[in-house]
Amino acid sequence: MAEEPKVAVAQAGEGGEPERALRERLHDPARVLALSDGVFAIIITLLVLEIHVPELTQGHTLNQALGELRPSLVAFVISFVLAGMYWVGHRDLFALIRRTDRGLVWLNILYLLPLCLLPFGAGLIGRYDTEPVALRIYGLLLVAIAVMRAVIWLYATNRPHLLWQRLDDRQRRAGLALNLSPGLVYLAAFLVARTAPEVSLLIYAGLPVLYFLSITVLRTGRARSQEYADFT
Amino acid sequence: MAEEPKVAVAQAGEGGEPERALRERLHDPARVLALSDGVFAIIITLLVLEIHVPELTQGHTLNQALGELRPSLVAFVISFVLAGMYWVGHRDLFALIRRTDRGLVWLNILYLLPLCLLPFGAGLIGRYDTEPVALRIYGLLLVAIAVMRAVIWLYATNRPHLLWQRLDDRQRRAGLALNLSPGLVYLAAFLVARTAPEVSLLIYAGLPVLYFLSITVLRTGRARSQEYADFT
Amino acid sequence: MAEEPKVAVAQAGEGGEPERALRERLHDPARVLALSDGVFAIIITLLVLEIHVPELTQGHTLNQALGELRPSLVAFVISFVLAGMYWVGHRDLFALIRRTDRGLVWLNILYLLPLCLLPFGAGLIGRYDTEPVALRIYGLLLVAIAVMRAVIWLYATNRPHLLWQRLDDRQRRAGLALNLSPGLVYLAAFLVARTAPEVSLLIYAGLPVLYFLSITVLRTGRARSQEYADFT
Amino acid sequence: MAEEPKVAVAQAGEGGEPERALRERLHDPARVLALSDGVFAIIITLLVLEIHVPELTQGHTLNQALGELRPSLVAFVISFVLAGMYWVGHRDLFALIRRTDRGLVWLNILYLLPLCLLPFGAGLIGRYDTEPVALRIYGLLLVAIAVMRAVIWLYATNRPHLLWQRLDDRQRRAGLALNLSPGLVYLAAFLVARTAPEVSLLIYAGLPVLYFLSITVLRTGRARSQEYADFT
Repeated sequence: MAEEPKVAVAQAGEGGEPERALRERLHDPARVLALSDGVFAIIITLLVLEIHVPELTQGHTLNQALGELRPSLVAFVISFVLAGMYWVGHRDLFALIRRTDRGLVWLNILYLLPLCLLPFGAGLIGRYDTEPVALRIYGLLLVAIAVMRAVIWLYATNRPHLLWQRLDDRQRRAGLALNLSPGLVYLAAFLVARTAPEVSLLIYAGLPVLYFLSITVLRTGRARSQEYADFT
Repeated sequence: MAEEPKVAVAQAGEGGEPERALRERLHDPARVLALSDGVFAIIITLLVLEIHVPELTQGHTLNQALGELRPSLVAFVISFVLAGMYWVGHRDLFALIRRTDRGLVWLNILYLLPLCLLPFGAGLIGRYDTEPVALRIYGLLLVAIAVMRAVIWLYATNRPHLLWQRLDDRQRRAGLALNLSPGLVYLAAFLVARTAPEVSLLIYAGLPVLYFLSITVLRTGRARSQEYADFT
Repeated sequence: MAEEPKVAVAQAGEGGEPERALRERLHDPARVLALSDGVFAIIITLLVLEIHVPELTQGHTLNQALGELRPSLVAFVISFVLAGMYWVGHRDLFALIRRTDRGLVWLNILYLLPLCLLPFGAGLIGRYDTEPVALRIYGLLLVAIAVMRAVIWLYATNRPHLLWQRLDDRQRRAGLALNLSPGLVYLAAFLVARTAPEVSLLIYAGLPVLYFLSITVLRTGRARSQEYADFT
Repeated sequence: MAEEPKVAVAQAGEGGEPERALRERLHDPARVLALSDGVFAIIITLLVLEIHVPELTQGHTLNQALGELRPSLVAFVISFVLAGMYWVGHRDLFALIRRTDRGLVWLNILYLLPLCLLPFGAGLIGRYDTEPVALRIYGLLLVAIAVMRAVIWLYATNRPHLLWQRLDDRQRRAGLALNLSPGLVYLAAFLVARTAPEVSLLIYAGLPVLYFLSITVLRTGRARSQEYADFT
């Protein structure tokens, strides 16, 4: 179905100049990034559609109106910051990647799949912020995203010809841990959602805060450890 | 209406340097790709809007909630993977294309037309997943997309000056078959929708699976046949 | 408000190297095109949101369902093709433009304004396809777009330093006529909407057909007249 | 979570060539601009979703229909022009910026947050254009945007290695004033919303007009003062 280019090269034989040029164009990450940036831009903007204009009456105060919007706004801010974190992570990852093969292209699309469900998840916890079912579905979504990120990390770093620079095993393990750890936290939020929904919501809201704190701590300590050198 | 540049060249005469530069800018596929990537990004993200936040009550279990969402989710996943396949196919095709003329620009726009109806089709089978009419409209949509893909393939490969590298007749026929074959399968799904709607839905859901399987098989066998060489 | 760069140059004095480099970056059309392509991509995709999933019942035939969708589908196709024509025109125009100044940047934004109302207009005639008021509002929209296109054409072609190549008066007049003529046709459609709504709708539906016909005719005749040379 | 690249550099040591290349890719503003342009394009297009197709009846005149749409249309036009001003300001600012570090990347995301709420704010004042609460929420939104713009200005201009060209203190203060001043005006609109909602709405509608007037005045007077030199 999407296999045309295979045919195109059929005749060119092995190692021919035009074949190599075509292969380079097929490996170019440009359109993968264009699609991904487009999806990220739309997701963070669609999140606002879940905040509905409330019914206002004459006697309504600003506090009351904002109070009614509070669950929607909290869900919006959490999901927005999460999507921002995912985008920064995507940008960091693809700064390492020089070429994309068909596997990486498809893994990236399958990573965008749970990501595109984020506005739905935000709408769900915006409306049912204390309902275990809503919190569990949101948790499943975030776990799926974390799993896909880890899969992409493993796939790409295991293929040195896709990278600008080869990574050693220690670096690959550290990267995997950094990609999976939020997934484990969200798994915990998923598991406690039934017995303690407030704790679950708190974890969703708290992880971004934790993320910014850890960045600050890592930066402060970077003089001592080259392992976590920051580029900012 | 959109004919300004024609005038611009009027005076420059034939083969002049500025005229040739303008022609190159008009042939540049950059904005065609920017528009297409934007449309693809929006389509796969809009699909989520067809999944509505369900009514949850205290006694609701996760399974019940997911059960009610199932048709919408299935339609979302099918349409998402389909759109992903179309995007990969578009990227592969345009890796062969060096220049776009007015005909190709318009064929690309007319290809985006049925593609933009995909979220509507997904909403339709998400709500009426056993209704023949819904399944037939969805089938018509997918057939239209396949036809437009084949038309673009024929148009572009028939104009060597638009390509990085000329294709021979055998390659063109193979590419046409690859572009049309899913259309024939969808035509079958359209035809059986009235008598056996479950079969129809199964075909829609099954083709992407088939696609991934066939890629895997082709890759495994690529050592024996250069015809289906993969670049991944 | 958006005047920061003015300050940046204050000290550099006239004709300094850094000042000239900043000026070039401010004149770069890249982000103007990125914003415009994004808006076009979103508009043609949002149009589908005006096609609502119909209520289907067991006895419903495909023809009945499509019949009910007909006005929405017609409005979708008309508006989609119109938006496509506007995008092709925008791409053609900016193939002439080398630099964008603040005036051109703002005229482009003000051109996008009526364009962004197109999905609303399509929804209006999709629902009230025989209602004079709906047809007149749609006509006003299309006239506004045509006027903005003519204004941009005059502004840009009157400033040779913004262009890759200077145009003479005859070329400028011909381009203006090509930009304004559809506006005059839409004005006619607006004016007859009250007395003959069917004629009005026919004009909206017919102009794109006319456009494709005229392109074909112009192409056939291009050997005789260099004035309408096509680049395709 | 989004820290993979840190690991990648761990082994390369200080000042190595690959490390420097990775740092340059991480500092590249390209994807920051792609995300931002995407968000801006979506915001100005989503604003139209707040204009709902009105109920039309046979006896309805064009004036009546437009009259009912007036508050929505006014809110659309105000918000559209505001978003346009923000985009022009963003483009001007990033014409000064050569590199983006992690802080700037995140500040830009946090700037997009209140911006993404603009369609919600427009929907609010489109429906309740004389309601103090709606006008105050809209004001809060615009103040938040102005504050984030000032923060980004301070952050970027305080880090000469991020800029193409260093700014002196006078330029930085002037830029800060230009970024903060609309925020002060919106703060005033927020404060008077309770006692004089009409004045508040007038300020929101009037500021863009003021902006265009001041640009014209500044341009006319630019011969006398190099401080406000324009690049157009």
